This record gives sequence, C-alpha cells and structure tokens, in this order.
Amino acid sequence: MKEPFLFDINMRRSVLLLLFSMGVKLLCAQQHPVVFGKSADFNCVAAHLKNDVLLRNSYTKIKEEVDATIGKNIDVPFPKDPAGGYTHDQHKYLYNLMFNAGCLYQITQDKKYAELVKQLLLKYTLLNPTLKNHPQSTGNYPGRLFWQSLNDANWLVYAGTAFDCIHDYLTPSERKMIANGAFKPLVDYFTRDLNKWFDLIHNHAVWAAAGVGIVGLATDNVDYVQMALYGSKKDSTAGFIAQLNGLFSPDGFYHEGPYYTRYAILPFYLFAQALENSRPQLGIFKYRNSVLKKALDVALQQTNTDGIFFSYNDALKDKSYVSNEVVVALDIAAYQYGISDNYLAVAKLQNKVILNKSGWLVANQLNRNKSVPLFNYHAADYTDGPNGEQGGLSVLRFGKSNNLTSLVFKYTGHGLSHGHFDKLGIQLFDKGNEILQDYGAVRYINIEQKWGGRYLKETNSYAQQTIAHNTLTVDEASHYEGSEKLSEAHHSIKLFSDISGPYVQASAALDSQAYPGVVMQRSEYLLVLPETGKKIILDLFKVKSEKEHQYDLPFNYVGTLMQTNFKYHTFNDQLTTLGLKNGYQHLWKLAQADSVSPFTQFTFLNKSTFYTISSLNDVSPMVFLTQTGANDPDFNLRKESSYILRTRAKNQTAINCIEIHGSFSPVTEIASHSYPDLKSISKKIDNDAYTAVAIDLNGKMLELIQCNSDFRRDQMHELQIEGHSYKWKGPFLISYNQKSIHSSK
Amino acid sequence: MKEPFLFDINMRRSVLLLLFSMGVKLLCAQQHPVVFGKSADFNCVAAHLKNDVLLRNSYTKIKEEVDATIGKNIDVPFPKDPAGGYTHDQHKYLYNLMFNAGCLYQITQDKKYAELVKQLLLKYTLLNPTLKNHPQSTGNYPGRLFWQSLNDANWLVYAGTAFDCIHDYLTPSERKMIANGAFKPLVDYFTRDLNKWFDLIHNHAVWAAAGVGIVGLATDNVDYVQMALYGSKKDSTAGFIAQLNGLFSPDGFYHEGPYYTRYAILPFYLFAQALENSRPQLGIFKYRNSVLKKALDVALQQTNTDGIFFSYNDALKDKSYVSNEVVVALDIAAYQYGISDNYLAVAKLQNKVILNKSGWLVANQLNRNKSVPLFNYHAADYTDGPNGEQGGLSVLRFGKSNNLTSLVFKYTGHGLSHGHFDKLGIQLFDKGNEILQDYGAVRYINIEQKWGGRYLKETNSYAQQTIAHNTLTVDEASHYEGSEKLSEAHHSIKLFSDISGPYVQASAALDSQAYPGVVMQRSEYLLVLPETGKKIILDLFKVKSEKEHQYDLPFNYVGTLMQTNFKYHTFNDQLTTLGLKNGYQHLWKLAQADSVSPFTQFTFLNKSTFYTISSLNDVSPMVFLTQTGANDPDFNLRKESSYILRTRAKNQTAINCIEIHGSFSPVTEIASHSYPDLKSISKKIDNDAYTAVAIDLNGKMLELIQCNSDFRRDQMHELQIEGHSYKWKGPFLISYNQKSIHSSK
Repeated sequence: MKEPFLFDINMRRSVLLLLFSMGVKLLCAQQHPVVFGKSADFNCVAAHLKNDVLLRNSYTKIKEEVDATIGKNIDVPFPKDPAGGYTHDQHKYLYNLMFNAGCLYQITQDKKYAELVKQLLLKYTLLNPTLKNHPQSTGNYPGRLFWQSLNDANWLVYAGTAFDCIHDYLTPSERKMIANGAFKPLVDYFTRDLNKWFDLIHNHAVWAAAGVGIVGLATDNVDYVQMALYGSKKDSTAGFIAQLNGLFSPDGFYHEGPYYTRYAILPFYLFAQALENSRPQLGIFKYRNSVLKKALDVALQQTNTDGIFFSYNDALKDKSYVSNEVVVALDIAAYQYGISDNYLAVAKLQNKVILNKSGWLVANQLNRNKSVPLFNYHAADYTDGPNGEQGGLSVLRFGKSNNLTSLVFKYTGHGLSHGHFDKLGIQLFDKGNEILQDYGAVRYINIEQKWGGRYLKETNSYAQQTIAHNTLTVDEASHYEGSEKLSEAHHSIKLFSDISGPYVQASAALDSQAYPGVVMQRSEYLLVLPETGKKIILDLFKVKSEKEHQYDLPFNYVGTLMQTNFKYHTFNDQLTTLGLKNGYQHLWKLAQADSVSPFTQFTFLNKSTFYTISSLNDVSPMVFLTQTGANDPDFNLRKESSYILRTRAKNQTAINCIEIHGSFSPVTEIASHSYPDLKSISKKIDNDAYTAVAIDLNGKMLELIQCNSDFRRDQMHELQIEGHSYKWKGPFLISYNQKSIHSSK
Repeated sequence: MKEPFLFDINMRRSVLLLLFSMGVKLLCAQQHPVVFGKSADFNCVAAHLKNDVLLRNSYTKIKEEVDATIGKNIDVPFPKDPAGGYTHDQHKYLYNLMFNAGCLYQITQDKKYAELVKQLLLKYTLLNPTLKNHPQSTGNYPGRLFWQSLNDANWLVYAGTAFDCIHDYLTPSERKMIANGAFKPLVDYFTRDLNKWFDLIHNHAVWAAAGVGIVGLATDNVDYVQMALYGSKKDSTAGFIAQLNGLFSPDGFYHEGPYYTRYAILPFYLFAQALENSRPQLGIFKYRNSVLKKALDVALQQTNTDGIFFSYNDALKDKSYVSNEVVVALDIAAYQYGISDNYLAVAKLQNKVILNKSGWLVANQLNRNKSVPLFNYHAADYTDGPNGEQGGLSVLRFGKSNNLTSLVFKYTGHGLSHGHFDKLGIQLFDKGNEILQDYGAVRYINIEQKWGGRYLKETNSYAQQTIAHNTLTVDEASHYEGSEKLSEAHHSIKLFSDISGPYVQASAALDSQAYPGVVMQRSEYLLVLPETGKKIILDLFKVKSEKEHQYDLPFNYVGTLMQTNFKYHTFNDQLTTLGLKNGYQHLWKLAQADSVSPFTQFTFLNKSTFYTISSLNDVSPMVFLTQTGANDPDFNLRKESSYILRTRAKNQTAINCIEIHGSFSPVTEIASHSYPDLKSISKKIDNDAYTAVAIDLNGKMLELIQCNSDFRRDQMHELQIEGHSYKWKGPFLISYNQKSIHSSK
C-alpha cells in the first residue's frame, strides 16, 4: 500500500468534531458569498475577463444564455414529466440558470441577475411546500421536483449556490421566506422521510449531502451543515465525511467506478470548496492525504485517449472528461492542489472554465502555455475499499498518444447498486479504440421515449450479468448468483502485480467466492517485444473445482471477423438464443463449432489494426459466435459481437494470447501483417506451484513461467523444463528469444 | 440541358483523327520526360522545395521511403498470391517505388534513383516474358503480375511513367530491352488476348488504355499510343477518346458512380497530362467542353462533408477525396483549369501534392492562402449517359458545413458491372452522418483473408439487390430481374426538378421498365421551413399496375429506434429470414406488425439528432424491422437495420415525410424536441393529374400539390380543394402556414 493510514476512523472523527466546533463559531459571522467563491474571487474573474480568453469565452457564453431570459416570464411548472419531458428539463434548466445568474451577479454586480434568481427562488418558495412525491417515480426514493430524489439533490446544490450569490441582495425576510419555502421542504424530506437514502454511502447521497450542506452554508443554518457533514443523525456514520472515508480507497479509487466518479466528483468538489471557503480550519482538501485530488487523478487516468471513462459497471460510453462535472472539479483541483500538465491537457479539451478564481487560474495558465502536452497516461494498480483491502483494479499500459494500449483488469469489490458481476474481467483499448469491450449500461439518459431516460431493464438482465463481460461464466450463472447483496459481501484478492518493467507489466488476482466450490485465478501480462515493439497480451485463466462445470469464456470483441483456424457452422436462416437466463437470453447464437482443436485462433479487424486471440485449452472447446439483441422488444441493446470458448471440466487452465498486429489503410489500400505471428502455444508445466508456457512467434520463442502459490517479490525460484534450467526471482519469469525480458525489482 | 453538343460523334472522330495525324509528326522528335512532367516541370519542383512547405513535405516523405531501399536487394517475386498476399503487395509496392524514384531522379538528377528504376525494370524484363495467367485469377480477365488484369494495368501506368523519367539515363539498347521485355508482353496481352476487355467502356479499360498509352509515349511507340487513344483496332470504337465520350455525361457525371470516378480519374488525368505534354494540339483537357474538369468537380460534389464518396453502386465507405487518385487528379486539374477555393479546400485536407509543376502550384497556393474556406457543397442535377439522356441523379441540399443536409435521388442508367438495382433510390446525409444508407459493396479490399480482397459474393446476393436500397421492391424481386444486361438497356426518366428555391428543392422521376407492367413514380422535396429553419423531406411514391403486387419500401436507417406509433411483435428468442432470395435471405426479421394504421411513425436517433419517418399509405401496411446478417457464413456483412413498409395493391400512393428534429447532448444530458412535430398526413386529391397532400406540423399546415402528368415549368394550374382555390405555375406548389414557399422560376 502506498499510503499508510495516519488515524483510525474514530480518531479522525474526534479530530473532525473538534474542528467542527471551531467552525461553528466562525459560521456565526459568515460573509456571503462563500459557496462557489468569495467576493474577492468573483472580483478576480471580473478583473481578468479582458485578458484571459477562455475565461472570457466561458463568461460570454453564460452571459448570453442568461441575458436571453431577462425580462421574460419564466415558467416554473408543476412537476409532472419523467426525464426528457418538459417539466424535468425545465427544472433542470432553471437550476442551471439560477446558478449562472448568481455568478453573473457577483461578477458584474448588475442587479438584474440577482433579481432573476430572486424571482425564481420566490416561485419555488410557493411551489415546493405544495409538492408530494413525483407521479413518475418508480423506485424507493421518489423526488419531488423530479422523478427521483437524486435530481432534487442536484437542484439543491445549484439553487443553494445561487442563493448564496444573491444572499446580500435579499432582505432578511426574503431570505427567511426562501429558506423556509424553497429549501426547507426538500431538506426535511431528504433528512427525515428519505433519511435512509440520505445516509447512504453512495453517489446519490453525496449529492444530497452537498445539497443540504450548501443550502446550510448559504442560509446560515448550522444544523443543515452538520447533517451534511455527519449524516441525518449527526453521528458521523453518514454524511460527507463518511462518504469521503467510505467511497474512496486510500489511492483515491472510487468504489462505483470512473463513470460514477465523474458524476460524484462535482458535489464532492463543490461542497469541499464551500467548506474550504467557510471553514478553512477543516482542511477538507487535505483530508485523507488529499483524497479528493487522488480521486480526480485516478478518474482521469481511467479514460481512453478520447477522454471517455472506462465503461465497467453501469456506464454510458459517451461520457468523457469534458463533461461539466469534471470541468468544475478540475478547475477547483487546479487551484487547491496546483496546476499540472495533465490538468492543463484536460482543461484545453474541456475548452471552458468555471466563473470563479479557480476557473480564472486555469484560463490564465492556458493563456500562458500555448503548447500544452497531451495527457500523460500511465500504468497503475489501484486498491478498492476504504482501507484498500477489497481487491482493486490494474491498468496495464504501454505506448503514447495514438499508440497507447490499455488493458484494464478488474478484481474490485462490487461497486454498490451500479456494480456488475464481472470478477476478473478485462477490457482492452488500443490506438484510441475499444477492442475487447465491457458493454456498460443500457440507458438513453434523459430521452423520454426510452422509459424516461432511466436505466433500462436490459441493464440488469444483460449488461450487469457475467456473460456480458470478458470473464468466466460457470454453468451459465452469473457471479454471486447475480445478487448485489452477496457480491457486496466479497471481493477478489490480488495475488501480485508488477507494472515497472520496460517490456512486461503484469497483474494477477483470485476469486474464490463468486461460485461456491470454484476457485478462479487469472493473470494478465501486457508485453512489448524488444526490437519490434509488437504488443502481446498473455492471459492465463486457471480454474479449480472438485466438481465438473461448464466454463464459458467470452471475448467481447469490437470489429469484423477476418479468419479462424477452425471450421464453424453458421445458423444461416434461423437463429436461437445461447441460453435462457442470466444474460444468455439476450445473445443470438450466430455460429457454433462443436469440437475444435484445443488450439484456437480468431482474427478480427478493428479500424486499421488486426487482432488475433490465440487460445490453448486443456480440452477441445466448443466455440460460439454471438450477437446481442435477442429478447429485446424495445430495441434497447446495441448489436455487439462475442467469441465464446466453452469447455466442461473440473480443473482447467486456459492460455489466451491476444496479439496486436499489422495495419490496414483504406487510403493506400494496403493490408500489412494481417496474419498473426503466433504459430503455437505449448503448456510445459501446470501444477499447484508453477505454470510454464512456450509460445512460438514465427520461430522466436516467448516463454512464461508463473508461480501459482508463492507470489513473493524477492523469492528465488529454480525449475527444470525439458532439460533446460530456469532461475528467477519473484512471481513470474518471461523470456523472449531466450533472453529474460522481465526481472522483478 | 446545360451544355449543347457542338459536334456529333462522327464529326468529333474526324477532327480527332486529323489532330492525331499532326501529333504523330511531333512524336518523332519527342523529348523525355514527357509523361508526368517535362524537365522544366521537375526543375520547378526542385527550385521550390525550400519555400513551399507542402511540396517539401510530400517530397521528403517520398524521398525517405525511396532512400530506405537504396542499396538493398529488392525482391521481384514470381506472382503467386491474391490481393493482400505477399507477391501482390510487393508488385504494388514496386510500381509505386519505381514511379517515385523516377520522379526523384528528375528532381534531384541523382543517378542512384535512375539506377534503382533501371535495375527493377531489368528484373521485370526477365520476369514478364515468362508469365502466364495468374494462378489466383477468378474472372474472365486474369492478370499476369496480379490476379486480375486491372492491377497489371496499374503496373503499366506507373512503370511506364518511371521509364519515361529515366529514359535519357538508359542506353538505346537498354530502352529496347526493357520495352520488349517488361512492357511488350503485357501490352500484347492486353491488346490481343484481352482485346475485348481492353476495348470496354469501363474503368478497367481506362486504366488499360492509360497504361498502354503511357508506355507508348515513354518508349516512343506510336502504335501503342494509337491503340490507347482509339482502341485495339484503332477505329475509335474504343480507347481513351471513346471512354471520355462514353463514360461521362455532358455534365461530367461518371456512369459508374462517384466511388469509381475516384478510381478512374487517375488514369484519365495522368494520361491526359502526358498527352497535353506530348501533343498539346490535341487539346485533351478542353475536350468535350472540359469534361475532365467537370468529372472531377462532379465527383467532389458527390461526397459527404467528410469527403467520403456517396456509396451508391459498388462502393466502400472508407474512400474519400484524400485518396491518392484524387490527389493526382486535383493537382493536375488545378494547374490545367485554374485553382479554385474548392480545390484548395480539398488539397488542404489531402495534405500532400504530387511532385511535378501541378503539385507545386497547389502547394504554393496553399502557402499563400492561410485561411482556406470549407468545401462549398451545392445542390445539383446531373444527367447520365454520353448524351445526357439516360436519366440522372439529383442531389438536393440545404445548409452549410456541419449543418449540411444532402438528399441523393438516383434515376440513372445501370452503371456497368458495378451498378446496383436501385432505380428511384434515395440516400440521406445530415450533419456529417449517413441517415438513410445505401449499403455500398461487400468487400474488404486487399485483405487476403477476405477472399483475396475481391468483391465478396454478398455484394451480388445482397448489396446489389433492390431490397438493400431505399426504394421499392415489387413481389420480392429485384429491378430488371437483377440482370445487369436487362438493366443496362433501360434507365429511369426524369419528370421535373427545381433546385433554385430558398425553401424548397424538388426532383421527380419515373421508371416503367424495372418491373413489367408496373410504373413507379417518385418525387422528392427537401424543405427548409421559414422562420424555424427546420428541415423536412417529402417523398411521394406512386405506383401504378393493373395487377395486384406486393410492395416493399425499406428505409435503411442508421441509428437507434426510439419510438413507433404502432405496436409490433418482436421475435424474441427465434429469428427467421424475411425471404429466400433477391437479398431477402440476408435479412433477419427482428420484428413485425401485421396490420397497423395507414399512418405510421417511426423515430430514431442518429448521434445527436432525431429523425422521424411518418408515412401515409392507402391501406394498412405490414411493417418489418430487419437486420442484415442472415446467410452470411463468413461474417462478411455489416449489421445494418431497416424499417420496411409492405402493402398489397394495384395502384398506390405512399406519402412519406422524413422530419429532422431535436438534439441530444451526452455532455449536457439534455434531449430537446425528441418528438416529431408531424401530427397527421391527409391525402386531399390523388388522380392522374394531381396529388394534393396536407400535413399538420404542430398546428401549422404544410401543403403540397403535385402535377402527375403535366410537368412544364411555365404551365399555370388551378384547383379547388375543400372549398379553397389554389393557383400556381409549374409542376408543384408547396405552402406552409398558408403561404406559398415555392414558386417556379
């Protein structure tokens, strides 16, 4: 572990309570604004609009939008519609409008902006006390203004910030009226009726805490702030601090995955900034060794070269780091933690900044640095869980910019309600493209026709199931029976990793709980061969079980099938599904091979690059080629392809080798190196202590010896294989062309 | 017709023969080089390498590639492999290498380049006389160096040009040896054994003519030049001049479609330049009112905003105007015809130039014009056929740059061996994306695993068939029984068009030969509504037949189904095909609605825009939602979607309205205007004289009256509809919100 805990949880709680009591005193004399910035911060923006072009552009865009509404009668409708419908979109529009107008008031001191916010808040003051649960609610946590309470929390965050901006423009009686009419009903609803939800350790509750806390700071309500920080019972078992403790590992790895970091990072940073402004003695940005900085940095690293977040767990594949939430977090981070090349690289693509001192700093630095380097991706191991003891995630990476290859290996905990059942799953990105994909979630966010923009039922019936992932499904059942509760109680265990080598990066993990009586052990090796620079992934998947099972290992490839080394039968004029449940009912069985050689090869083309998956199984596998789309009456699923190897066995070791090769150019019409180098895979040894593999790459041998029980870094090993003696240190040895290309450090 | 014929074919032939006889005299004293440029042209390149950055970059890239081979023993293998295989790729590489080295010799006067070309040509001098038909040949026109003769023609073009560049470096006996050894076997093979092929009016024969002609000019062989210009019999029924006459309409529309213009334009321009250099009195670039300029301009206009050529007929969707063939043609055109903003716009994206005076000119102009405007697309009507009397193609267009909408309406002749059976088909592009697609061809060019990169059998069994297109299939049979020969004998007939209006562009055509006894009449109207700027397409498809038929009208949409106004049944766990032949065997029937209201609506999302197809049929249609992929044992087909309306009738009128609406942003997560405005379609009149339609767009009426028999532009019409009197001039009237938005000019 990189970062030791300095305090245990209880010690930290005591310190925080002490700090908090100091904060209360200061709060009594609170100046406003204090949430999104202080007066001086906004003055700073006003002073630099002329010179810092990105600041000016961001300001101008917002000003034009807000100015277009001035003098118009703005509808604050009675809530009725689901996401994507009119009343939903209008309330979403209005909280952004209030937030922007509040900032503009502080920057320009033009009262028309304050008046706009005031009039809207007064309409909400009349509306909100009349609201019951939203008619479109479907879950346990209905909203009032919106179909789900989460969106009401969004509203609180922005409306509270807007109130803070115009605090001094309002008379004391107006402040009281709005606090009691617009805010109190929602805060009470959250902290009393929905207190179970409010007290969750979950991204929804982060928004709720930030919303209640920001309203508390804006309206000088200490009670709200205390509930926001320590939960509805104010006992530190919930609330913002517990969320900072519970949702991140010491590395800053966010338990729900990067797609949701993106979403949670805004309330984390916005409320943290408000706390830093109002009670700097809390030192919130330094909390847990600056966990908020780590959180942002880890999220940014968990993107592909286009800035799209890795799509494991529930995730939509069009969300990148240019989304508004990350703009806010990144600007604040740049100010609080210092600006870095990576922050600048992202800010440049975001092409906008927030309208406070943080945003100014970023705009100013971009103005001064005309040539911003590309975002620098690196390999990393992340731990999961509050103490870093719930498995983790490895990102093996070689190459720069367009030639970056990223192999994501997941052995985390479950990831709360948006987690998927994909222990030991992998995802492969190469040259900017997704090669072996995680489906992500099935959702068309905020599109009313698609069930009001909610997560669609195929998210659960397909996307979350194990077969939708590049990992092993046993007996056509998902990990942990597809039960979130069961899965939450366990996690995979990391065996070893080493991301330091110039030619080899490795990570291995084990899961013994996903299926009772089945132990799955998987190791990933990302290699760059010396001389040629060719990249190859070795993937060893060992399974142990006393009983015989059916093992399905899918490769959810993105591309066009070029060639296989086996014959298969296609179902030319009639299709059926691969199975009946656990996601299998969504797979059309396009082709099948019943008994092929244990050595299988499958080549596909993705854009301009060829990929070959070569596998050696202990026995002859069956092969299925499938496509998603069955049992999808509303056409919610994308049409995605999978290459599935099926075996029946007790113990087994599958050796897979993913070779990245060749290129095709539609401009020159030249396809080069379209065949794999890999000619054969031989398993030399496979026992409880070692697995040894030899791979023939066009006559040059690539050899791997892996330890299966002793993973100590400094342990020496010695082994005779076919008359040759091998000696090495650490959990594995890899040699190419008879030279070791890895030695443990 | 825009352009009157000045001569009839026979007159032109006489004039050309006269000009040719003048050329012969000059040829005797021919200086070399003369094909790709004269000495002075290459000197010009040398002189400007320093200052014109794009010229220098293009030169440096080629020089680096060629320099890397100097001193190496280069393999000239005995031909063996299909496209994508080693010997194929090597010979392709070698003709480019010789061409580039030849140019470098002329530019640098460095003899190592001439020596490189010479040594390679000497190897071919030994090889070529030994060659029989290529072992991988599959068609009627086998190659010798390559699997098909077309590629041998490519070789002649480039190798001939290279010879010309080093002509003066060779001794007379070397010249004779190479001419007889490397070139003569192929020229003889083309003009004797394959003379039927050589004498085709087809892109292959253009390459062959250019190859033989360039070799003739390079080796001072008048006979070759004469065969190149006038066919193997030298009687003007074939050869380059006949190709210029026969493949282009007077507008410059290329009969095989824009994808093949791209391919043929290189030999057209390269040989034309060689002729201009060697016999300027031919005036080849001015021939047929500068048909070569028109050819290029029409091809460039037939692209989407990404420069990808429209994919009707056999076409691959990754070919854009940055491909090498267009670089060559564009540079030469810029020099011969004068440089335009559109040429500069394309050249900038091509980002390279050829290494002669033409290339220098383009590089120089780009150097001088730092801000090049975007390519300017415009609406256009093109005639097809040598005399412009074989139907044609309309491109209706509104909007600029990212907001361009292009509706392609095809009523051409067949288009030779690469033509598709899609009379009256449409293609829709919007905001840079393909919305209603033409599948194109099924081919992975030069990828050996995919049947040696050839056109795959699904090109014929699916992609060329009518059901693969956005037009009417009658009784599950393709137009003209899917027979190229039958289809070549006929063409559609244009009824009227008007692309002059600020709010309306229209085109209508008729086909009475595709199905015996069935007359199909289709009219397309692309509208931009005043005030809102909203774009709508009206599509009237009238069919007349004395017998009852089954009519299938597919919309091959690209996107995700959002909503329909009808209920359908999905085949959840078992799929069958839509039919058994004529392309139907490749369509999986995903969903079906047996009897829906005559008014159907179908909304889909493509990237960030919603599209709704609203249709009014005379009777209740059946609806099918399909996906390609059935009977595709090699996984050659992409997975594409179609929405098919099926009726049974004698006469019928289908009124379709394609509405472009709303937007979705994954960044802001806001979906606006995701529902169509269109509430109803009413057919007011439908007889032999008129069809009148009223469309309710959220309370505002859009009305169309179309003439069905009298299409004269200046004819006045008057009509009473439901008590209202309508009076207009020309073939149609369109009014919106009770105001005419179109008046014929």
